[in-house]
Formats: sequence, structure tokens, C-alpha cells
Amino acid sequence: MNVPTPKITTGELPASRKIYVAGALHPDIRVPMREISVHPTAGEDPLPVYDSSGPYTDPEILTDIRQGLAPLRRKWIEARGDVEAYDGREIRPEDNGFVEGSRLTPEFPAKAGPLRAKGGKAVTQLAYARAGIVTPEMEFIAIRENQLRDLSPSPREGQDWCAGIPDRVTPEFVRDEVAAGRAIIPANINHPETEPMVIGRNFLVKINANMGTSAVTSSMEEEVEKMVWAIRWGADTVMDLSTGRNIHNTREWIIRNAPVPIGTVPIYQALEKVNGIAEDLTWEVFRDTLIEQAEQGVDYFTIHAGVRLHMVPMTVDRVTGIVSRGGSIMAKWCLHHHRESFLYEHFEEICDICRAYDVSFSLGDGLRPGSIADANDAAQFAELETLGELTQIAWARDCQVMIEGPGHVPMHKIKENMDKQLECCHEAPFYTLGPLTTDIAPGYDHITSGIGAAMIGWFGCAMLCYVTPKEHLGLPDRDDVKTGVITYKIAAHAADLAKGLPGAQRRDDALSRARFEFRWEDQFNLSLDPDTARAFHDQTLPKEAHKVAHFCSMCGPKFCSMRISHDIRAEARKEGMDAMAAKFREGGELYVPVEDTTTEAEE
Amino acid sequence: MNVPTPKITTGELPASRKIYVAGALHPDIRVPMREISVHPTAGEDPLPVYDSSGPYTDPEILTDIRQGLAPLRRKWIEARGDVEAYDGREIRPEDNGFVEGSRLTPEFPAKAGPLRAKGGKAVTQLAYARAGIVTPEMEFIAIRENQLRDLSPSPREGQDWCAGIPDRVTPEFVRDEVAAGRAIIPANINHPETEPMVIGRNFLVKINANMGTSAVTSSMEEEVEKMVWAIRWGADTVMDLSTGRNIHNTREWIIRNAPVPIGTVPIYQALEKVNGIAEDLTWEVFRDTLIEQAEQGVDYFTIHAGVRLHMVPMTVDRVTGIVSRGGSIMAKWCLHHHRESFLYEHFEEICDICRAYDVSFSLGDGLRPGSIADANDAAQFAELETLGELTQIAWARDCQVMIEGPGHVPMHKIKENMDKQLECCHEAPFYTLGPLTTDIAPGYDHITSGIGAAMIGWFGCAMLCYVTPKEHLGLPDRDDVKTGVITYKIAAHAADLAKGLPGAQRRDDALSRARFEFRWEDQFNLSLDPDTARAFHDQTLPKEAHKVAHFCSMCGPKFCSMRISHDIRAEARKEGMDAMAAKFREGGELYVPVEDTTTEAEE
Repeated sequence: MNVPTPKITTGELPASRKIYVAGALHPDIRVPMREISVHPTAGEDPLPVYDSSGPYTDPEILTDIRQGLAPLRRKWIEARGDVEAYDGREIRPEDNGFVEGSRLTPEFPAKAGPLRAKGGKAVTQLAYARAGIVTPEMEFIAIRENQLRDLSPSPREGQDWCAGIPDRVTPEFVRDEVAAGRAIIPANINHPETEPMVIGRNFLVKINANMGTSAVTSSMEEEVEKMVWAIRWGADTVMDLSTGRNIHNTREWIIRNAPVPIGTVPIYQALEKVNGIAEDLTWEVFRDTLIEQAEQGVDYFTIHAGVRLHMVPMTVDRVTGIVSRGGSIMAKWCLHHHRESFLYEHFEEICDICRAYDVSFSLGDGLRPGSIADANDAAQFAELETLGELTQIAWARDCQVMIEGPGHVPMHKIKENMDKQLECCHEAPFYTLGPLTTDIAPGYDHITSGIGAAMIGWFGCAMLCYVTPKEHLGLPDRDDVKTGVITYKIAAHAADLAKGLPGAQRRDDALSRARFEFRWEDQFNLSLDPDTARAFHDQTLPKEAHKVAHFCSMCGPKFCSMRISHDIRAEARKEGMDAMAAKFREGGELYVPVEDTTTEAEE
Repeated sequence: MNVPTPKITTGELPASRKIYVAGALHPDIRVPMREISVHPTAGEDPLPVYDSSGPYTDPEILTDIRQGLAPLRRKWIEARGDVEAYDGREIRPEDNGFVEGSRLTPEFPAKAGPLRAKGGKAVTQLAYARAGIVTPEMEFIAIRENQLRDLSPSPREGQDWCAGIPDRVTPEFVRDEVAAGRAIIPANINHPETEPMVIGRNFLVKINANMGTSAVTSSMEEEVEKMVWAIRWGADTVMDLSTGRNIHNTREWIIRNAPVPIGTVPIYQALEKVNGIAEDLTWEVFRDTLIEQAEQGVDYFTIHAGVRLHMVPMTVDRVTGIVSRGGSIMAKWCLHHHRESFLYEHFEEICDICRAYDVSFSLGDGLRPGSIADANDAAQFAELETLGELTQIAWARDCQVMIEGPGHVPMHKIKENMDKQLECCHEAPFYTLGPLTTDIAPGYDHITSGIGAAMIGWFGCAMLCYVTPKEHLGLPDRDDVKTGVITYKIAAHAADLAKGLPGAQRRDDALSRARFEFRWEDQFNLSLDPDTARAFHDQTLPKEAHKVAHFCSMCGPKFCSMRISHDIRAEARKEGMDAMAAKFREGGELYVPVEDTTTEAEE
């Protein structure tokens, strides 16, 4: 066989071991976590952390992208007895942009037929939650969110803005949050390969990474690798925003190999099917695309149904008009036909498709601001109110819903976005792009937006869509994707800390202890990006001996404040620090008022 | 002559021109600004922006580091008639760490003798402000802060937390803020090369970049270039944190060539003079070092006088102890000698030195938290209260004061830091390092701290000390310094926007208009880092033609939302958008309720 080995990044992160935790209600579930071990001198247990990377970081599992991942949810789905297998829609030339021959991305080899709900049943996690059922997905999530926090409880602090974060996540709590619409579990029945995860403001803040096929032809390996690379560093979901050719087949390769939920913007593919002419879009083409993608296993759809005809004029005096691709396509359609969009008009039919496969809604913010000047304007908030209406329509049909948010927003307008979203959209989870807190730093928009993302995450945003350094300028490469993911892991974690999410501080504390004790290797290994941390240390102090040195490059051995701190501690302990502290608290004779300027040295 | 040309980065930034604005009260002052011009098709005037880069970006001025910069403030200082020239302190071998021969950095060639106050006078900007004098420095700053904002007024928004930001900065306003202690003008009379700048929460948020000599021998050119490089990208002040050898001579080269205030931590050099043994420090050695540095022209001193003996035990149970170098040195000294530190005891004498040269205080936070776990603890806040006491002692002696702040602080504890600082320190300007909002991302601490810096800047912090990607790991190189500076310019600007600083949004708006109109070159040139923005665009769309393309690489020509937005706008205008908008606002017949699902497409 002359098939080249797919270049997929596998293997554990440094000092890490994949572990699996079993369920209690559902003993067959195995929840993956990553345990990071520290040097024996620390006398600390390994730290369990949330792990989005899937089987690729488990050396016990041999992955093969031509096989796809094991369908671990398949038996849970079938056990519910409410789905049926069927032939599914025929793949048509337009699904791949009419590309033929050698330019056609090969079909995924091991394709199973799709499932759908039997007899109009709702097969959504929301429907089960409302029926009082704790699904295996829900228990899986409860275990996953807790990260074994019971093993080393840490104090609860933080300001959660009345969110309602529990001390411990139980399966029943997951069910209740889903039932209330405050959380979603994106889990298409045709994507049984996913490791279930939850998006909601009473859980860990999640991050999404966008990807898409490039204009240049890329192989299936390259496309799968983009996804694997993003989840390796912590992406909780991945959106496939491909345009152009080979969309269908590429997506199949990605979904079959994805342990995280995959989101799409179906209007992009629909537009391809009408040769890019927005006015030629029809409900039929769109509906066909939804079914095509639901059968493949897309877990959430961005649907720009909130862009309504009467809102389009509100954008005319904006500095940057409409910057959402989907929003601008729909606005153009509305204006051309002088009527309400087919997304809005057919919203209930869209719900009926989503409930038959459990595709979650990500209601798109087609009128989000594209500049500081346009933040929180009439068009943006008018659309948000419509998204609230649509949320209730979807909920009435047992569909899971999250709401997309901006965009470009200065810091003082961020909280208003969150508060208004909670109010208008009845606490459905919020999912924002950044927001970018200034427009003046193209090339650094991971940072301009990381600031806004951390803040809105703290205020209650449930998922943060990453922004890479290339935003506004070009297509992100591998390094940009990693930078975007790490930046957003920082934002999400900073938000978890500020919300007071139980256990969130454990990793900060473990790393800070390692820092204080000069356990350099532990400091690298506990960090979000051990490779970069180590490489930076190597640049200044390359020798292996420096990895055990009791100083760092900033100060050198003589000036190291941490080393001096240890000396102080030793000295203080030696002299009975407690007694001494008490003495000083009482204002002993060692207190010398500032007016008295004699010192030993002067004597 | 065989002297190699110093490798100093000079020349204008792209599309930029240095302009100078004259004073009214003091017609001889020439305030530098950078004008960025845009493409003629925009029909916009050039945008004036604040310019910290000094003469190095003025092609009309030939700089030579062996000459130093022109002493532009000298005649203002002399005109006040309150200073005298004197011989000054003799340079001693310990000032340069006893280094000799070829390892000794040469002395700066064109050294002038120092000035000091005559007869115990206070020659500080605070003393003048209190006397009702508007100095040339104050008028310079007023013009500089306004950035010609009158030329294109923009609407005021934002939340300034009752700071008291004026619509327009007048010289009298600068005087009043300095007189009230709410702002400082770091301007040693022996550093007449500075272009005056102000640090205060009713002005633009400023940023500081740290630098220091490396362990490896580096040339004077390299040291000066570090400073020039940092101010080129926007550092408002530079701290020279050098340790080791050649400290004195290197600092002289830096100061003579610095158009921005230079800060130091004198205890570092004092410690070198006692061979790095903290216990051997004495008031005499420290006092000698203060005078040495004041005569050279250091504009602000970090003084860790707030670390008091009774506070040391409070740090013993911390996760990361004392992380400030100065703080740990003083804590060790206090503990060893079992007495109050000489900094605290001799604080009034330190004030007397500072008032004779106008060296501003930067009261060091020696007990700042070095980890999330230690944030806002008893040790930190006890010291802050002491800094408040010291502020009043310094003010009583007409000394200018700012207060240093943390460190590592989760988001929900940042505002408490700012509020407590304002209260304890009587509104003296706050100057913070970050703060870092999580400990788990070494290698990315410019980002973990950029989040905190933006927030605390919004809340009222006057100056943000940058953190580079190498923080905690190694010494920053040229790229790290630039990344740190740009990140902090983003944080400072995001804060200015959120505070509603008049005119701050002009640059965002100009860049966003350029973005919307596909003026790629303008978008690069208006950004904080035109070189990186252009390079990123080149990576995906390298051709010159792409710089005028009406689409970008993200979507390509077919999908570009901005292009569609223009189509929409054209179409809307054609059809009389206002009339149409009115029609929809009234709920015309085009409103189709979501229940009605018939569409043209289905017909």
C-alpha cells in the first residue's frame, strides 16, 4: 500500500497521563481527564485537568483518520429507542461545488447511514431533561466539569453575578440547567464520536476555534489535523467555516474524527449551491443543506434568522455596516426581495429539523458591530430582541439554543451586552466573538479581544469564540491557531477564577507553588503551553542544570526575591515566627516611628 | 575614524510625519506629535497621535548617542532661578561594580555638571503647581494630551468612575491636577532631555517598559537601542532595572539619550555596592546611591519604604512569599536587624533629596502578591496603608508621588485594588504591574496581565508597567519588548476608550473607516504596529494588487460581508433608504410574522 501516513499530532502532553473516570448512574461511561504529575519532592498528587483533546492524546488508542473515532455515544442513542436508521439524502455534485476527478476530496471510506427521530419525536437533550431523564451525556458532563475537584477542595471566592454555580456538579444539576434552557449539550445523534460537553454559565467557560478549508487545495489529513491541533490546546468546540469546493466531503472527514462538537454556518454552503448569488438563495436550497449537514452529524448550526428586513436600514449609518458574512447575505436577500428572510419565516420548520437530530441552535448575530463606533447600537439590540423571540419558538419545540454575540465592544459596554442578552434571551447561553475592545491593533486582535472575552466570560458568557492574530488580515496558520486557542484558554480560565468556579484555582495554586519552590519542570508542565514555557526558559538558561536552579534569569542568583523569601521564611521559622508576629501585632518596642531617624548604621 | 555607527533605530513610521505644536503661554515650546496620513480618496485630514518616540523618528534631527539629545528643558529650568550648578559627587569604582579596563563601559563623553536646588528650595513641579505657576512643562503636557483633538471632535461616552476627565486639557488643569497630587510630571532637573509627560488618571493612560543590562556584556549602543526601540512602539517611560556591573556608566548613556522619563530602583545598585549582602545595606550607602542617581537625572525612584518589620510575618503563609526584589531585600534586612527599615526611618531625608532634584517617588509595593492565591491579602493592604502615610509625608515636602501596585490579581479583585489605593493614598496616581489575572500561562503573561492592565486602567490606574511574554521564564529580547509594549498600548487605549477620554476613539474610527472602505494601506498605517499588520496581510495575499482589493483573505471576493454591505448601502440609497426605513419602522406590509411561512421561493 502506498498510502502516506496521515500527519496527525498525537501523544501525551509532558508529564501527563490520560485517565478515565467511570459513571455511577451509567457505569459504562468513561470520562477522560488529563492528570499532570509533579516532582516527588512536592509531595503533591497529580492534578486532574479538563481534557478536550480526545483519543489523540491517549497512547493506548491507535487513531486512524480513515477509520474515524469510536462512536462512543452510539449505544446510548440507540438505547433510548427513539431513533431510526434510514437511507438519507443522496450526495449531489453541488454539495462539493461540482468539483470532479482528482480535485474532488475522496469520500470518507467508512460511512454509516444516518439516524433520525422516529415519528416526529424530539431526540434532544432538552426534551430528555424536561422529561426528567438524566442521560449518560449528562452524567458524563457532571463528572467532566468537576475535574475530580473533591480530591483537593479549594476555597470558594469570586463574584458570579447571581449565576447559580453549585459547589459540586451533579448529573441532576446538568439536567436541570439543560431543562431550564440555561445550558446546552451540542450532541447530534449522527455524531456519536463526541465526548459530551456542556455550554452554560454555571459551568466552566468554553472556547471555540474556527477553521475552514483554504483556497489552496488541502488534503483530508491537513483538515483533520487543524481540528486535532486546536483541541490539543484546549478548543472545546470547532466551527467548520469552509467555503468553496469540497465542503461536504471535507466536513465528513472532520466530523468522523472529531471528539468535540462541530458547528457550521449552513448558509455558507447554501450560497455555494447557488453560485454565490445571495438573491438566488431559497428556502429549498437552505432546507436541503440543513438536512445534508444534520445527517452528517453537525452539532450546532449558526442560523441568522434574527436579521429582519426592517433592521437593515438601521445599519446604513454605521461606520462598518454589516460585518457578519451570514448577516450580510441575509440582509442583501431581504433587501433584494423586499421581504422577511426565509430563515425567519421558516424558523419553525428549521426547528423541526433540529429536533429530529438534536442539532443545537447558535442563533447568529448577523448585525453584530464591526467597530467600536457601532457597538451596542439600535441594529444590534433590535436583532438581539428577535433572537429572544426565536429562542422561545425553538424551546417550544424542544430545541437547544445558544445566542451569538459581538464583536467589537469597548470595555464599558461589555456588561450591558451580557445583561441585555440574559434578559432578552431568557438566560439561554451566550456565545461571543471576543469582543474586541479596540479597533487599532490589527495583528494583535487575539489580545484586543482576549481582554473583552475574559470580561464577558466573567459576566456570564458561556462560550468564547477565539480570534487569532491574523483576524482582519489573513488566514491563520498553525501557530496562529495555537496562539488563538491559548489566549482564549487564558480568558476562559480568568473568567472561571473571577466567577469563583469551585476548583478553578487549583491549577494556579499548583503552578505558583512550583514557581515558589523552583520546580521549573513542574512550572512548565502545569502551564497551558509547556512547550513554549520550556523554550522560553531555554533561550536564556539552556542548560539542564538550570531546570533545577534556585533562581531565574531575571535576577540571577544574588537578587532572586523568591530565594530571599525562602531565606526569610527559614529565618522567621527558626526564631518562632508566630511569637514574633504576635509581638509586632501588639506594637512591640521594635516599632520605630518614622520621625526617629537614628539607625544602627549611623551609630 | 574607526568608530562603528551606532545601531539605533531611527526614521518615521509608515505614512507618518513628525509635527510640532507651539505653546501659547510659552511660545518657545514645541510639542511633538505624529501625523498619520490616509489615502486621498478618504477625504480625511491626517490623524495626529501621541508620540513618545522622541527625536529618533524626526528625519530632520540627526541623533548621535555620543552627543546625547538636546537639553530642551534646560532653559526653562534655569529661568526659574532656583537651581545651582555644582561639582557633584565623584564617580567611584563601586558605582560600576569595581569593573576595570576593557570590561568597563566607557563614560559618556559629553557630561555636564549636575544642578540642584538652591538653599533648600523645592524645585518640583508640585511646588510650582501649588504656587500657582503654570510651568512650560505643564503647557507642553496640555498640548500633548489634547492631541489636537479640537480639530475633529468626537462624541464623549464611557464610564470614568468619577475621575473628573475634562473635555479639553488646559495648562491650568495640568497645574491643578499636579497641585492636588492626582498627577505627577516625572522631570528631574538633571534630565533636561525629556519631553514632558504626565501620569494621572484624568489623562491618557501611560505605559512603562522595563529594561536592564544583561549578564553578558553589552555595548552602550545596545543599551540605548533597547530604550529607543521601546519608545518607538509607545513606551511612555522606561525603567532601568540593571543589576551587576557597569550600572553607573550604562545609565548615563541611557539618560542622556532618553526623551522619556527614566525610573530606577536604587536599592538594586546599593545592594551591588555591598556585594549583594542585604544585611550589609546601610542608610549611608543608600543615600549615596540616591544622590548619585539624582545627579545623573533619574526621574523617578522606586522606594520600598512601605515594607515594615511587623508586616514580614504576614507573608509567611503565602503561596509565593515576597516576590518583589526590593521588598524581599528590605524584608530580609528588617528581619536580620530586627528593626524598622532605613527606608522607612529615613523617609523624610529621602524626600529632601527628591525635592532638591525633582525626582518623583514611585512608592514600591514590596509585598505585592506573586500569585492569585496571595492577591489582596493582609500583607498587601497593610503595606498600601503605609504607602498612604508616606504619600502625605512626601507631599508635605513638595515631592511628587505615585504608588506601585500588583502583581497577580484575579479579575474580581482588581477594582478593590484601585478603590483601596485611591482611598488609602489620597488619589496619588497608581502604577501597576499588570495585574496578571491567572498564574497558569507562563509564556503568555503579556496576555494574562494585559487583561488585568486594561481593566485597572479603566478603573483609574494612571500607568501600566508592561509584562513581556518572557516574564517568569527568561530575559526579553527585542521581539518580546515590542510585543510587551504593543500589548500594553492596547490595554492603555482600551482603558482610555472605556473611561471616555475625549478624542480617544478617533483612531479607532479612522481605522474602522479604512477597513470598511478596503483602504488596506491606511488600515496598516493607522494601527499600533503597521509592520506586523502588513506582514500578516502579505502572508496570505502577497501581491501589491491585493492592497487595493475590495475583499480580504478570510472570505474571498464572493463572500465578503463588507463588500456585500456596500452593495446593500448602494441599493438602499438608490431606493431612498430613509423613506424605506420609516416604512419599516411603522410596521409596513412587508412585515411577515414568523407564523406565515409562504415565500416567493415556494410559490
